[in-house]
Amino acid sequence: MEEYIGIDLGGTNVRVSKVNEAGVILQTVKGPSYGTEGPEIVMPNIIEMIKKIDNYQKCAGIGMGVPGPVDTARGIMCLSSNLYGFTGYPIVQHLQENFHMPVYLDNDANVAGLAEALVGAGKGMNIVYYVTISTGIGGALIANGRVVSGKNGFAGEIGNIVIDRNRPKINHLNAGASECEASGTAIVRKARERLPYATINHAGDVFALASNNDQNAIALVDEITTDLAYLFSIVAHVCDPFAFVIGGGVMKSKDLFLPLVVEKYKNLVHEGMRNTLFLEAQLDEPGVIGAAMLPLSMKG
Amino acid sequence: MEEYIGIDLGGTNVRVSKVNEAGVILQTVKGPSYGTEGPEIVMPNIIEMIKKIDNYQKCAGIGMGVPGPVDTARGIMCLSSNLYGFTGYPIVQHLQENFHMPVYLDNDANVAGLAEALVGAGKGMNIVYYVTISTGIGGALIANGRVVSGKNGFAGEIGNIVIDRNRPKINHLNAGASECEASGTAIVRKARERLPYATINHAGDVFALASNNDQNAIALVDEITTDLAYLFSIVAHVCDPFAFVIGGGVMKSKDLFLPLVVEKYKNLVHEGMRNTLFLEAQLDEPGVIGAAMLPLSMKG
Repeated sequence: MEEYIGIDLGGTNVRVSKVNEAGVILQTVKGPSYGTEGPEIVMPNIIEMIKKIDNYQKCAGIGMGVPGPVDTARGIMCLSSNLYGFTGYPIVQHLQENFHMPVYLDNDANVAGLAEALVGAGKGMNIVYYVTISTGIGGALIANGRVVSGKNGFAGEIGNIVIDRNRPKINHLNAGASECEASGTAIVRKARERLPYATINHAGDVFALASNNDQNAIALVDEITTDLAYLFSIVAHVCDPFAFVIGGGVMKSKDLFLPLVVEKYKNLVHEGMRNTLFLEAQLDEPGVIGAAMLPLSMKG
Repeated sequence: MEEYIGIDLGGTNVRVSKVNEAGVILQTVKGPSYGTEGPEIVMPNIIEMIKKIDNYQKCAGIGMGVPGPVDTARGIMCLSSNLYGFTGYPIVQHLQENFHMPVYLDNDANVAGLAEALVGAGKGMNIVYYVTISTGIGGALIANGRVVSGKNGFAGEIGNIVIDRNRPKINHLNAGASECEASGTAIVRKARERLPYATINHAGDVFALASNNDQNAIALVDEITTDLAYLFSIVAHVCDPFAFVIGGGVMKSKDLFLPLVVEKYKNLVHEGMRNTLFLEAQLDEPGVIGAAMLPLSMKG
């Protein structure tokens, strides 16, 4: 069974793992990423970490996930807001020159989705759409075992999809964008406006209040689950996945909102599409596992 | 250069062509499909037509496009409204038993999109989203040279995507579905309501009136191009195609509406996505060419 190096690079921390074809993590090295100090510091640090992996020379390839859109053909980040100086930096070329093996790069949501599609909740399914609902809303399309990353690395940026154009503009995203209306951040924002008597620390508080029969919370949950149902129905009509695999912090309350979303989804799709599966993400470390799966997914 | 048999089966007519790898049609046999008479009449007729193709035995595979959603793994139509008795009929199995070569089935929009992606306007591009705007609105996602058909064959059914939920329900599709708001049929319907003084035979009449400074027509074109911009931006955030390849009768007026759509699209996507190409479909016979490309696309 072949083994791969997966790298999960964030603005604060970086994790390097050796992962086998089945998605099992065999060894991990982790530490600070020095993300504010530029690629001249960040990259040599990663190279040293890779060299701490036993028999790293025998691995069949290297994959890396980064926080931001990626031009996968050129192996560069199109835009880097959390890693100083990385926009356009030749990450893939640099690693290839050091390790002389196949190297692939993609963004963190795509990499997590790939892990879930190949060895997680979507294993064995031909088309998987991964959705993460946490601070923001993001996603990833995995078709025939490969990430569909997009011309500019923006495939999966479903947080900017307008689910109702008649909403106020909140930030740089579109007015009525799903992330502005149904992310964890949006749920907290709306709850603080509409339930001033309640203490709202995170989205779970809203779902808990609704299940305790708070009428304002019930109305808010109805709005949010409707918005999410529109979002899922939109994605389904574009690519009709076998399953949505859903991760992110808001899924901690899945029993309190996901059945409502699925029920409403069924009314927004063609009858023949009502069998789409809605599955919870399974993996604890989708970042490094999915990164390691990148070279595997690109073979053949 | 290998050659393939492509079959474009409609409710009224059927066309069988021999097509080479470059997408050049070498020979065509056409005739009525007998679509109301059931597969026991339709299929033997197609088999006889294939046998009229010179050296059909030497072709490397057969592909067929049909009007309706397809379960590509099982080689059956999930739903057949224009071909009597075809829901669940084992089309692929039947042709394989008769010709002993690879046989693939997909719906007509997916097949047309595949043709445009491989040998038409999207040639050489990794991810193409084909969109047809005519009586209805349909689409197809082609990624890495293959159709993404979907769990139930509904990938590309973008006519049912809600681009504004605050619209009346028109038919069996969602209220505010793109097809109800911006298809050729929808444009004619709205124009007859809002421009009662004008003779509207098709969507082109509305665009022509707008270019002649009819204020009601200008307002309608503004609405329709906004609705289409929302639709394209939604699809782009799901899969970030290199190009939208657009076909269908409404494209006859492309100079009068497509620049407006593209301008509005750019305000509805992330800055890094504004380079998406909007291309006109190129092929005269995408149906048979794309059908013939199905076995080619599934190799390797």
